[in-house]
Amino acid sequence: MTETLPVTERSRLRRLHERGHFDRETINAILDVQPMCHVGYVMDGKPYVTPTLQWREGNHVYWHGSSASRALRAQKEAEVCLTVSIIDGFVLARSGMHHSLNTRSVMLFGRAFKVEDPAEKLAKLGNFVNHLYPGRYETLRPDHAQDLKATTLMGMEISEGAAKVRTGGPKDDEEDYALPIWAGEIPVRMVVGEPIPDPRNLDGVEMPDHVRDFNYL
Amino acid sequence: MTETLPVTERSRLRRLHERGHFDRETINAILDVQPMCHVGYVMDGKPYVTPTLQWREGNHVYWHGSSASRALRAQKEAEVCLTVSIIDGFVLARSGMHHSLNTRSVMLFGRAFKVEDPAEKLAKLGNFVNHLYPGRYETLRPDHAQDLKATTLMGMEISEGAAKVRTGGPKDDEEDYALPIWAGEIPVRMVVGEPIPDPRNLDGVEMPDHVRDFNYL
Repeated sequence: MTETLPVTERSRLRRLHERGHFDRETINAILDVQPMCHVGYVMDGKPYVTPTLQWREGNHVYWHGSSASRALRAQKEAEVCLTVSIIDGFVLARSGMHHSLNTRSVMLFGRAFKVEDPAEKLAKLGNFVNHLYPGRYETLRPDHAQDLKATTLMGMEISEGAAKVRTGGPKDDEEDYALPIWAGEIPVRMVVGEPIPDPRNLDGVEMPDHVRDFNYL
Repeated sequence: MTETLPVTERSRLRRLHERGHFDRETINAILDVQPMCHVGYVMDGKPYVTPTLQWREGNHVYWHGSSASRALRAQKEAEVCLTVSIIDGFVLARSGMHHSLNTRSVMLFGRAFKVEDPAEKLAKLGNFVNHLYPGRYETLRPDHAQDLKATTLMGMEISEGAAKVRTGGPKDDEEDYALPIWAGEIPVRMVVGEPIPDPRNLDGVEMPDHVRDFNYL
């Protein structure tokens, strides 16, 4: 049975054009391939949108930043909106109106919390490194106490929100298909380039598999 | 002389780590290559972040959506934050702490307005199509009055905000350079795939240059 998130007034924003999805499988699949996210929050009644990286553990998403960050302080125990988007293609129609984008996106709503427990925080930051680069964290210089102190870890439960997915070619007005206009889709995708070793890497240090096999989107 | 935006309390958010840039040249260069943006706004005191496309005309950015959109109605004459981001690479350091991202991003703050004048709206929506696909708008079925009515066009002045740019390899703690850990950068970039013509294109309709030459990021 597919588990779905409740359809709320906020999450119904995404049902426009009936491209909304409330099942966790669709939502998780997007969260798990796109680490980039945009976190929205309110300070003094005004909106802010900060780009950062997120990762998912079960029914929660996490993100982090500098403990000096005013933004993260403003998010603690406050309502946030975390949005994750992927562009898959540009859709060209026969009228300006029906041009579109093929995208996969997720909008999550909820109250952010700060992970305070040092052991939990350390484990989760390790999970973050390993989420991007499997097995890397154990190969690194262990975190210092001051590294942890300088880092704030935020999280939120995945309990309200929706995904929106568009795929395929243009949908034109029926009479416009008779026009001699090129329509179609231009797919785009992220590619990973050749890794650039730090010139200060020690002699004999080989490129690990988690770098060679790195994949993004 | 380089024209810069004022450094305000909000835009100073971006000066963390001294990677903030307030000059219009840096800001415009990012806005002009990345149409994808995330617009933050407040409804009933809560934050929302909607992914959409933006384009710049002089000192303004514009975005659009369905006239049925509650989001766009909430943005009218209200404070918004429009954020544009590009990921250029993943930076791997010798400690978890110093892992980073190479990114170019812009955060703009201001009051959004709705473009009401029909002639201005029509011209700007045409500019948007031609911004993505030079010369395409003139080849399309002209917009109907109802297309324009169904579309809401929003704009904001570029008057407050900042860019943030990170490039290059990791910056590790000096003593960590002695460790036998692979560090470096994994560059990523968007590539454009082979255009997919709509199966309903009329016989003899050729792929236009603005499709063949389409470039993204």
